[in-house]
Amino acid sequence: MRKRLSAELIGTFWLVLGGCGSAVLAAGFPDVGIGLLGVSLAFGLTVLTMAYAVGGISGGHFNPAVSLGLAIAGRFEMKHLPAYWAAQVAGAVLAALVLYVIVSGKGDFAGVGGFASNGYGAASPGGFSLTAALVTEVVMTAIFLIIILGATARGAAAGFAPLAIGLGLTLIHLVSIPVTNTSVNPARSTGVALFADGPALAQLWLFWLAPLAGAAIGAMIWQALLADD
Amino acid sequence: MRKRLSAELIGTFWLVLGGCGSAVLAAGFPDVGIGLLGVSLAFGLTVLTMAYAVGGISGGHFNPAVSLGLAIAGRFEMKHLPAYWAAQVAGAVLAALVLYVIVSGKGDFAGVGGFASNGYGAASPGGFSLTAALVTEVVMTAIFLIIILGATARGAAAGFAPLAIGLGLTLIHLVSIPVTNTSVNPARSTGVALFADGPALAQLWLFWLAPLAGAAIGAMIWQALLADD
Amino acid sequence: MRKRLSAELIGTFWLVLGGCGSAVLAAGFPDVGIGLLGVSLAFGLTVLTMAYAVGGISGGHFNPAVSLGLAIAGRFEMKHLPAYWAAQVAGAVLAALVLYVIVSGKGDFAGVGGFASNGYGAASPGGFSLTAALVTEVVMTAIFLIIILGATARGAAAGFAPLAIGLGLTLIHLVSIPVTNTSVNPARSTGVALFADGPALAQLWLFWLAPLAGAAIGAMIWQALLADD
Amino acid sequence: MRKRLSAELIGTFWLVLGGCGSAVLAAGFPDVGIGLLGVSLAFGLTVLTMAYAVGGISGGHFNPAVSLGLAIAGRFEMKHLPAYWAAQVAGAVLAALVLYVIVSGKGDFAGVGGFASNGYGAASPGGFSLTAALVTEVVMTAIFLIIILGATARGAAAGFAPLAIGLGLTLIHLVSIPVTNTSVNPARSTGVALFADGPALAQLWLFWLAPLAGAAIGAMIWQALLADD
Repeated sequence: MRKRLSAELIGTFWLVLGGCGSAVLAAGFPDVGIGLLGVSLAFGLTVLTMAYAVGGISGGHFNPAVSLGLAIAGRFEMKHLPAYWAAQVAGAVLAALVLYVIVSGKGDFAGVGGFASNGYGAASPGGFSLTAALVTEVVMTAIFLIIILGATARGAAAGFAPLAIGLGLTLIHLVSIPVTNTSVNPARSTGVALFADGPALAQLWLFWLAPLAGAAIGAMIWQALLADD
Repeated sequence: MRKRLSAELIGTFWLVLGGCGSAVLAAGFPDVGIGLLGVSLAFGLTVLTMAYAVGGISGGHFNPAVSLGLAIAGRFEMKHLPAYWAAQVAGAVLAALVLYVIVSGKGDFAGVGGFASNGYGAASPGGFSLTAALVTEVVMTAIFLIIILGATARGAAAGFAPLAIGLGLTLIHLVSIPVTNTSVNPARSTGVALFADGPALAQLWLFWLAPLAGAAIGAMIWQALLADD
Repeated sequence: MRKRLSAELIGTFWLVLGGCGSAVLAAGFPDVGIGLLGVSLAFGLTVLTMAYAVGGISGGHFNPAVSLGLAIAGRFEMKHLPAYWAAQVAGAVLAALVLYVIVSGKGDFAGVGGFASNGYGAASPGGFSLTAALVTEVVMTAIFLIIILGATARGAAAGFAPLAIGLGLTLIHLVSIPVTNTSVNPARSTGVALFADGPALAQLWLFWLAPLAGAAIGAMIWQALLADD
Repeated sequence: MRKRLSAELIGTFWLVLGGCGSAVLAAGFPDVGIGLLGVSLAFGLTVLTMAYAVGGISGGHFNPAVSLGLAIAGRFEMKHLPAYWAAQVAGAVLAALVLYVIVSGKGDFAGVGGFASNGYGAASPGGFSLTAALVTEVVMTAIFLIIILGATARGAAAGFAPLAIGLGLTLIHLVSIPVTNTSVNPARSTGVALFADGPALAQLWLFWLAPLAGAAIGAMIWQALLADD
């Protein structure tokens, strides 16, 4: 179990450092910044790379919502959920800390600002309402679980799951960064909310509630409509 | 058959929500928008991810023109065409509805505008004529079918078809968004046309006619010139 | 042989329509254009998709320089070179014709301009000299052949060659579009030069000479330093 | 051994020509430049393509820090380290020379400027401190080694390692170009530092020290927490 929790901690560390790090450091770089497209790619590649690297050890969840959805679908033991969640949140917080150290070394540093945190209402990048944020996070996480459950099902093409799942996360970001800055992952939201200026911590409840609900819904859709009997 | 139609409905839902959603929500986001490149990537990744997830269940068409072309090439039973088309259109309409709910939650919402619909003439993003639109949609869909038929042929590299087909759809968008906003998929065109302002519904006939004709041509080219005897 | 030549013609058709088409139609689209990054991706994806679709039929060259290099390395019969070259050039010319039809359907059409043709000196996108263009095309094509010969060597990972080769072509474009608009493929250069305004036809000799020389050099480096004995 | 060193030399040549070449030639091209996203993709694709092409010959390190980390993890013989390092640096210097020849052929050439070299403080693209640069390079290289060791471990999905490792390098660049222009590779830093204007040579010590330390740390984390017993 130590190996599995190490893998989840390191993988989620990389998800937050790579994904949120690209957003904070490179998205708006003058003239040649990577924009939302680059950030979307970065988030997806964190999962793609770590799923190939340590997916065989822990299953490669890196996300409390994914662990829950897999448990509901019978692919993961429910009793391991607390330990996985703890490792994932620890990795995310550690990554946010490292990112804080790097960002504070910028010559003209004057606070981290939003720090790639998630939000709705005035804290939504595009000014979307709580309802729009809720619908977006639930639907995106539900589809994410269907992709994960399908790409790792018995009979799925061997070896391609990390590619499908990682690029699936890229796609989710391509659509939903303007709405909520894209969570679909409560650990990712928690890590940066602890350091962010603004209402991130006060709005964090939504980014636990909606991804977990979405993951449960996605797992149930899979079981009801798509799973082998 | 319920499983197969569920897979087609969910896959086409994701194609429209992910592809058209990225276009409506993120393409023109100020300063850091994903642009036509991000939208092209998003459309391709919808197919890549869902083909890995549920392609083994339904074949992973997510597109009435693809179903027709596969039927003509003898890879799909013609009698299932009506059910597949219905599931695909239903998924597309449902996705457009969800997207409408999200978009209408934007603080400064004032109508959906084009809503990523397809068009020609004044409704073409780059102002291309009906003839240019027709040629583009026919040729692009024909090549799309050749890619699909080749990548899924007996003897093709196992497991790589969703990658080739998904990235093929990305490539088609990289070329043709300026001409027609890229359809090659009548279900995708129908879903958003129902909600769009402007002439999308009046021009919808072309985005059934041209992709279906193109798919038929592509399937016939494959059978005549490239298929095993 | 008819099947093989059909595959080469269709594949090279797609390379020029997809690659040059994205450059002409979408690269400079106002505000949301795909830029040189999108064009680079498009060229690579033409080869990736067609190599998965018809690579098993013809070998998936789609490029006279590749055919020459493979012949020098003993992977392709030299006697088939003329037929392959003819099919490749025919596909490229046909694609340029289709692209011309589409482009001329633009409302404000006033000539095709450079039409994504290759050039040096004043016709180089970044104003690079003949020498810089020559060095670039020779080196890029040489490395391209090393990638191709390595990724298709006995013992290479099965199924991944189209991915490596296609993305290799993307990479070559990411570097060298500013220098020559990137050829590394005499058929691609010929197809659009026939329609382009400016000196493309007068400079076409370089985009046969340099890619062919580079391919020969790459094949010889492979044979001398890297091939199994 | 001649074959192995040739592969390392050619692979590192391509890493520097492709990665730094895209940065110097195409990143800031007016209006349609590839930006930091395109440069990140280019660096990753150099490794992806060469790992598929010659990874089977030499292991596909192309980076002194990777060779060191693999040696510490027991995957590479320590005694070959000097020869590998020499081949890698030679390839990098050769690539910088070729790039210099190309760049100096630009019509308005007036010196190479930073020449895609790495730096901290005033030489950091975003003005990041020595400490931030050190932390970034150490952490990024450590994670890079974990990805490499995981993706090539016994039991990892066969054939996917070059994809995971190459895209891992893309991801590292997406995050860290603003901080140090991204090294994680002392050979890459050395090659261009020899030609660059500014303090690149005086700061080169950091881009040997930090990647080597990071690689050692990554290898030790792998061995301690993730490796099979």
